[in-house]
Amino acid sequence: MRKFWSSMVNRTDPYVPGEQLNQPGLIKLNTNENPYPPSPKVAEAIKDEMGNLMRYPSPTADLLREEIGKLNDLTADQVFIGNGSDEVLAFSFMAFFEPGKTIRFPDVTYSFYPVYAKLFDIPYEETPLNKDFTISPEGFYGSEGGVIFANPNAPTGIYLELQHVEKILQENPDVVAIVDEAYIDFGGESAASLINEYANLLVVQTTSKSRSLAGLRVGYALGQAHLIEALVRIKDSFNSYTIDRLALCGALASFRDHADFTSKTMQIVRTREMTAQKLTDLGFQVIPSQANFLFASHPDYEAKQLYLQLKQRNVLVRYFDKRQVDGYLRISIGTDEEMEEFLGIVGSIVGKSV
Amino acid sequence: MRKFWSSMVNRTDPYVPGEQLNQPGLIKLNTNENPYPPSPKVAEAIKDEMGNLMRYPSPTADLLREEIGKLNDLTADQVFIGNGSDEVLAFSFMAFFEPGKTIRFPDVTYSFYPVYAKLFDIPYEETPLNKDFTISPEGFYGSEGGVIFANPNAPTGIYLELQHVEKILQENPDVVAIVDEAYIDFGGESAASLINEYANLLVVQTTSKSRSLAGLRVGYALGQAHLIEALVRIKDSFNSYTIDRLALCGALASFRDHADFTSKTMQIVRTREMTAQKLTDLGFQVIPSQANFLFASHPDYEAKQLYLQLKQRNVLVRYFDKRQVDGYLRISIGTDEEMEEFLGIVGSIVGKSV
Repeated sequence: MRKFWSSMVNRTDPYVPGEQLNQPGLIKLNTNENPYPPSPKVAEAIKDEMGNLMRYPSPTADLLREEIGKLNDLTADQVFIGNGSDEVLAFSFMAFFEPGKTIRFPDVTYSFYPVYAKLFDIPYEETPLNKDFTISPEGFYGSEGGVIFANPNAPTGIYLELQHVEKILQENPDVVAIVDEAYIDFGGESAASLINEYANLLVVQTTSKSRSLAGLRVGYALGQAHLIEALVRIKDSFNSYTIDRLALCGALASFRDHADFTSKTMQIVRTREMTAQKLTDLGFQVIPSQANFLFASHPDYEAKQLYLQLKQRNVLVRYFDKRQVDGYLRISIGTDEEMEEFLGIVGSIVGKSV
Repeated sequence: MRKFWSSMVNRTDPYVPGEQLNQPGLIKLNTNENPYPPSPKVAEAIKDEMGNLMRYPSPTADLLREEIGKLNDLTADQVFIGNGSDEVLAFSFMAFFEPGKTIRFPDVTYSFYPVYAKLFDIPYEETPLNKDFTISPEGFYGSEGGVIFANPNAPTGIYLELQHVEKILQENPDVVAIVDEAYIDFGGESAASLINEYANLLVVQTTSKSRSLAGLRVGYALGQAHLIEALVRIKDSFNSYTIDRLALCGALASFRDHADFTSKTMQIVRTREMTAQKLTDLGFQVIPSQANFLFASHPDYEAKQLYLQLKQRNVLVRYFDKRQVDGYLRISIGTDEEMEEFLGIVGSIVGKSV
């Protein structure tokens, strides 16, 4: 019965999210979630909002936009809120990229980019990473239709220094460059500081990782007002109310609790460094990460086999069945206790202990 | 700086939602919200879920799909969940309508349909309503690209009998017919009962009206599995996790509390009939409604003036500045107390009392 499907459906090649298993005792290190709960203020704010569920939420999310703006030295009209950064990215593909004009993204990066491109019929080139998985900025100069890359990149965790990001902006003055900063709070410096200088820069961030709100679906974009206006026009032609009342007030409470955010983020960075060191001691090659995950390979063990053996022992990490990266595991950073347990199990598999 | 806007942004003509004012004492009868809070089980379920906010929600919403399926004698693979019925409608335009093939919808209906059509570059014809605002089924026979209409229709509240809906399905065997049933629980009979017979039928419903969950953003589509699969392919190419954890479990709790739903829905129907009668007594012409709102005009008073005078007196109703309907007010049904207060104020404006 595919006769009812549009040509758009027929050209889709849907994204496959990481497994969402729910078995008891599982150590879940496969979708880069934060192991710590959000600020306790989030639950308080949500409880206070429960009496208003029969009323539509604010379609403009003004309070949240102001708060996020303040934190980034920007005004509310330089902030766009979406239903997770995936929706923000989808709207961005609609708003800034054009069928018939080729965009560029790295050949190893967030695997949703080619999915959006196919959906919206936007041609793309995959710019090769260097051999050490770093992004080669020159590869992004002079794009016809725009560029998008994750910084830190996924699934490598490698951060591209801001001076290189800035050069990419300068070398693409007539097209939009989207910097997807889902993992920026774990070590890198955000390109948000460049927004007032560059009319073509859109920075996308999320509350799913550093703010422990993957379950609440709030992402956002930062950019000059003309870019934000384009996103608003798309949203208001698509879905007026994409963020529910509880998500709006929960996210607001999170952004207002800076101390909680800082302490948990720093803890994850410490745990990441500890884990990287011990994985190295176990014989892994660990890519230097500025994200809340590690990308690691072992010279003597196939990544796929390690992934399966870990899964058998109730540890879930992410394995990508894709040339270039199929020798690696992506390991999200959990609590110290979870990582110790993981290291014990992986050590027993590779016949070493730390 | 429109040079960065895509052709898609340039052709948008965004939907304008009803005003979301927040002033104290306002009687808000402008966006067809439910005046009653949702089932108390909703808040309980949400509180129980609060400990999981750092984890992604289920991308497939299996439990909710099963529950909604059961209530409609359908299987889970005949149910699609979206971020409000607006998102479901947007995905449906992407999945079933085609640029270059003309679709049809009524010339007076939910004003988001032409907005979607412009966004996705789908040509459309606006089929005229009859003079009494009823839908003329024949006008929808033999569409080239598909049809969509609201039943009950908005902003009239008029319900089209199921036999006419069925005839529209029969006369469009090769294209999808979307029946938007946002208001179906206030009196009409759902076309969901026709799904297993008609491969081209998609029924769209929402929790925003009859289930008092406008603030939570959960809509859904019912249809044969091949249509649902198309929607899933679009969603998974757009945003993997569109419904957050709290919305998923809150909506599930609502669907499981049938008694609460029935009693509140019946109360709104009673209040609607009382209000319709009294508006008639005040000299209004009231269109017979099967929805949670009334569409009414007064022979001696301009609708726009009534709208403005009501607003000055802290009562918000909806006025559409559009030929054909600019003589009417759309009045959402609130509590009995709110409607009595509204009737008192509107009576004082038209110089009568009830």
